[in-house]
Order: sequence, then structure tokens, then C-alpha cells
Amino acid sequence: MALPRWALPEYFADVLPVEAQGIEHLRRVLLDEFRLNGYQLVIPPTVEYLDSLVSGTGRDMDDSMFKFVDQISGRTMALRADTTPQVTRIDAHLLNRQGVTRLCYCGPVVNVLPRSMTASREPLQIGAELYGHDGIEADVEVLRLLARTLALSGARASRIDVGHVGLFRALAELAGLDREAEEALFGILQAKDVPALRDFTATMAEPARSGLLALPGLYGDANVLLRARDVLPDVAGVHAALDELLHLARQLGELPLSFDLADLRGYHYHTGLMFAAYCGASPTAVALGGRYNEVGRAFGRARPATGFSLDLRELAALGAGVGMSGAILAPLDNSAELAACVSALRAGGEVVMQELPGHTGSWREAGCDRRVVLKDGAWCVAALED
Amino acid sequence: MALPRWALPEYFADVLPVEAQGIEHLRRVLLDEFRLNGYQLVIPPTVEYLDSLVSGTGRDMDDSMFKFVDQISGRTMALRADTTPQVTRIDAHLLNRQGVTRLCYCGPVVNVLPRSMTASREPLQIGAELYGHDGIEADVEVLRLLARTLALSGARASRIDVGHVGLFRALAELAGLDREAEEALFGILQAKDVPALRDFTATMAEPARSGLLALPGLYGDANVLLRARDVLPDVAGVHAALDELLHLARQLGELPLSFDLADLRGYHYHTGLMFAAYCGASPTAVALGGRYNEVGRAFGRARPATGFSLDLRELAALGAGVGMSGAILAPLDNSAELAACVSALRAGGEVVMQELPGHTGSWREAGCDRRVVLKDGAWCVAALED
Repeated sequence: MALPRWALPEYFADVLPVEAQGIEHLRRVLLDEFRLNGYQLVIPPTVEYLDSLVSGTGRDMDDSMFKFVDQISGRTMALRADTTPQVTRIDAHLLNRQGVTRLCYCGPVVNVLPRSMTASREPLQIGAELYGHDGIEADVEVLRLLARTLALSGARASRIDVGHVGLFRALAELAGLDREAEEALFGILQAKDVPALRDFTATMAEPARSGLLALPGLYGDANVLLRARDVLPDVAGVHAALDELLHLARQLGELPLSFDLADLRGYHYHTGLMFAAYCGASPTAVALGGRYNEVGRAFGRARPATGFSLDLRELAALGAGVGMSGAILAPLDNSAELAACVSALRAGGEVVMQELPGHTGSWREAGCDRRVVLKDGAWCVAALED
Repeated sequence: MALPRWALPEYFADVLPVEAQGIEHLRRVLLDEFRLNGYQLVIPPTVEYLDSLVSGTGRDMDDSMFKFVDQISGRTMALRADTTPQVTRIDAHLLNRQGVTRLCYCGPVVNVLPRSMTASREPLQIGAELYGHDGIEADVEVLRLLARTLALSGARASRIDVGHVGLFRALAELAGLDREAEEALFGILQAKDVPALRDFTATMAEPARSGLLALPGLYGDANVLLRARDVLPDVAGVHAALDELLHLARQLGELPLSFDLADLRGYHYHTGLMFAAYCGASPTAVALGGRYNEVGRAFGRARPATGFSLDLRELAALGAGVGMSGAILAPLDNSAELAACVSALRAGGEVVMQELPGHTGSWREAGCDRRVVLKDGAWCVAALED
């Protein structure tokens, strides 16, 4: 059966006025917050060469993007599914600053398939990235900014899961795993498949073996970090990762942090701390972030980098929203006094629609609840009667 | 030779912080102006089924869009090259209001090839559309809003060219042309090829012949309309079109209107008045618009429609721009007094960046020109010395 011409592809949607106004309002609030914190807005293109978009972002990005051929160059282009690699390209190559660079962005990204059954294929991605500082202070700042972002939307974080890819890397190195074995182990830990983990580590030397076996049990509040110090091997990589996590726990006591030391969600991409924020009872994360120091290398300069991103549409739906106040209908009249009255109303924030002839009775549908009328020689606002 | 990974496709560009802030500022100013005039924001998806995007928009749209296959439905999707058909779809099908509906939008569109040698392949399209009113009052309102849009950007219109597709249609009908002949004539008039026009009309009956021959000479100020009354055939279609143009000229005396009665730029799409706004000495139009009453038909409801759109990036570049004021550097310190000082500065509109350790000497590059310092026990703002 032919679909009607107005049908949209699955997992795509039009945003209609009330919701669109809420998104626009939140967009401004968040971009203002980012700007006042020193994060400068950049606008990368919506499409680029595929090679650039997959640079340094891990193997999975390629399949997630719609691709097409550029008629000018003959090269494959793609519709971005993530803005972060583009912002990293801008930091590494275009801005090329030596010091700390804070950038932010907001624009649509498109996924070939939705990330979950309830996700849109076109998130309106907004995010903030901090380049040039490798210390944990940058991660603390970014996590605080994320918490503030959620609070400003009215959707306070109920939980922020924190992990650190450095723990897994240190243990895999200690065990002497080659790249292929490390990948296999990664799959097992991602699946939290403890029996498989026991099999896989059976012939492994200590203390790598017991360290890896301990990982899946190390989740919960900050006490997990103290427990990890006791049960994980005493090697530099483990120390460094736990020190960062402990610093975070101390600095961000006001946030609902939860630690999961076996979490490897961003393993192909992240190089240190990783986090995911949850709101309310929703099982899917509303925001993802973390450290990705290696992504810039493909663009000529690996810079320390940490940041977060989220879907502004989803966040706006979770948040408090903004009400849409009624509009005022103004007659079609060339009077200078009326024009002055309308200008004053608009300057005061009122929506004033000009009446057009022949539509009596339909203005309430258009959103009007008042009208400008001439009374005793003066233009004033009265209730809309029809 | 392999291109570096950071190379962008031709006619695509990153927008860097200073320019991006100017675009964001102008975006807000214009969307606010639209909103206060009763134009409600909608956000259609960036991609849709190709069938929907080309519905009612004329033959040329198909070639101008990047296409790819939807893995879920197996159908062809495309990256939009114009938002107007989408907004028309929303008016016709989703909102389905009976009365006047004012909508606006702002988002990227992508063209397979640039529209001109200096154009971007990814305009940031912003526009306003008025549905449901067929009278000239709607076109007057939309042209006023366009002029105000340009003025708000600091790029006042130097000329607004106005045409009316109804004149050509009335003359073609009078001459009894079939669809094919009308297309051929359209091509001749578009090229302003007067010798070919003379050949084409040689065997045509009067008064259609002299009417068509007169068209290319009918351009200039409002006096052209009075001259057109004398030289064009006395038929209803010509009358109606000239009456609309005269109404426009009378109502919009404050705008730099210029009439071109042979202009057929939007012939496959427009159904009445058409206009193009020019700024400064640029030969390409900064904004295009007009009436397109038939586009909604493909979505189940042909509604009267008129509006305009433009590239916000281009407009921001033409306009006055906004300066980027210097930021304030604040030390990394957990003092509650410092936090209060920083909050107060940000509430006052100042950008305050947190200092991160080890980057002395690089903060001017990041945009700072002042810093928060502790002086006599109080946090205050001082010049940035390093």
C-alpha cells in the first residue's frame, strides 16, 4: 500500500508550535549558560566527507550514518550522527590554540537506525567540550556543567553513572593481552557475563586475573572506590584511574554520582573518565560524556578533551516546559496610533497578530485570546469575543 | 593526492566562534520578531521521504537533494534542500486549522550543488509563511516582515524586485498555448530573449501577441504598473494581477520596490506575487518569497500560502554583526565567596571562564582580558596581566 505523501519515516517527527517553543527556549537557556561559562559556539556543517566523520571515533560510526556521493569531488559524504568529532576537528585544526579551548554546539544529527525503541533518529544534539587540559579539574567542570544543564531544564539528574576506561586498559595490559584478546574481553565485560569472564581469565596470571574478576562487582556509591583500592592490583594505571575517580567523588559530593568500574560503554572512543546521566525512572541515559584524548590525532593534533552531549528535544520533553501565552489580535488598519500601540505591546513581550479580512471566528484557533479595539478614541486591549 | 582528513567538501564551511555568535544573535532577534508577529515556530525533520519533499515543489527539486535509502522502509529518503514544502505539509495535514496560520522555521538545508559561485551548499534557512488567506493583505504583511527582518540584521534592502506569475499565465491562456508551448515560452522569457520571443509570437493572434512582446520592457518603479494597464490586454487575469501589484505599491511606499513583469523565477512553484530582495551591490538575492497556493494540494489541502525565506548565515555576514566582548578568568578555588562573585558576574552578562592549572600565559588566546582576584579579602575584577 502506498503511504500518503505526508507520512514521515519511522522515528522522525515534526515538532509543532508548543513543543518547538519549549525547545527554542531551552536551547537559548543552555547556550547562554555555556557561553557565560566560556564555551564558545561553533557550527560545523551537517554533512562532511565520511573519512572526516569517522576519524578517531571508533569502528561503529560508519554504519550509523546515511551516505551519498559528492557530485563535485566524487567522494563519499555522510550526514553526521555525532557532532563531537567535528568540534574536535575544529579545535585541532582550525582554531589551533595552544591553551585551553572551550567549545559548544547545537544542531541536528541523524542516525540510520534509532539508538533505542523510544529514541528519535534525529536528535537535536547539544553539547559542550573542553580541550587542552588533561587534569581531572576539566572533568569536574564538565560534570558540574552537565548537572547545571539538567537542572536548568527542570529535569534534575537522578543518577550520574561514572566509569573509567583506564582501569580496564591497565588490567588488560597487566594480563599481557593482545588487541584481539582485549576485544574479546571487552565484549564479555560489556555483557557482564561473569561465567564467560571466569573461563576467559582461568589461565591468566595473578594479580590481573582476580582484578578482572572483581570488576563486575565494583559498582555503587563512592565506597566502591575504597573497596577497589583493596581488591585491584597495585599498578600505576589502576592507581591513576582510582585517584581521578576519588577526586571526582570528593569534589562533586552534591551530585548523585554512582560508580560502575566494569562499565565500558565508550571503550572504542574514550580514554579516561566516562559518564552517563539519568533522569527520573527512565532506563536510557539522557546525557553521555567523558574524556576522549585521542580523537584529535586524526586531524593532526591529539589534544586532551572532555565533554558531554545530549538530545535537546528529549531533554525539553523531560523538563518543565514553557507555557504558550495567548496572543492579541490587532485590526488591519493603517492608523499610526494603532501601529504605536502594537509596537508597545510587542516590546512588552506580547504576541500581536494582524487580523486579515474574512476570518471572523477563527482567531481563537490561531492562538488569540484578546484583541486591540478602539474605545473612546484610544486603542486598548479587550477580551476576544468571537 | 589524498585530501587531509580535516578538509571539508567544497562550498561547505565550519562557522567559528565570532561568526557563530553573530548568527546565534541574529537567529534570536529574527525568531523573536516572527513570534511577536504571531508566526509560530515549527521544526520539521532534516530528512524525509523524497516523495514528500518534492511534492508540489516543481520538477527541479529532485536533482537538488542528496538521496539515500531508509533501511527501515526501503524507501528513498532525501536531505531537504528547502524547508517550505515541509512547513506547508505541517499546515495542511498536521495542524489542519481552518483559519489563518502563521508559521516560521530556522534550520539547515543542503543543496547537491551551490546555487551560485559564492553560495554555500548548506544555507541556514530561516523563513516565515502565512497560510489560509488569499488576499493581497497577506502578501503586504509578509513583505513588511521581510523588510523588517533585513533592517533588524543591519542589512537594509536596497531593492525588492516584485513580479506576478498571473500575468504570464493570463497571456499564455489568452494565446491558447498548450502546456508544452507555455514551457517553451517560459524559457524564452526567463532568458529575456527578445528575438526568440518575436519569432515565437509571430503567428499569434492579437492582443496576446503584443501583450507578450510588451512584458520584457515592463520593469522599473510603480509607473510600470500604470503603463502595463495601457499596453497589456484587457482580460480578467491581467487585471487581477495588476490590481494586486498596484495595491502593493500603494501600501508599501516606504519599501524600495521595483517591478519586473517578465520575471518568472518561481514559475513552477509560485501562483501569484513573487519577490526577491537585494542588499547593497550584490547581484544575488538575499531573500526570496511569494505566493504558492498549490503546494499544499499534494498533502491533501491546497491552502492559500505566501511567505519568504533566506540564508541566515549570509544575512549575518551582510549585517552589522555583534562584537565579542572579553571574558573574565576566575581562579580554580572552592571558596563560596568566589562562587558568589562569579555567579553575580555571569548574571550581569559577563563570560567567566574557570582557570585550569598549568596554562599561565594562554588565557588571552582563549578570549580573556580580565581576571577575578582576591584583594583586601574581597574578590574583585582586575586586568589580566599575563
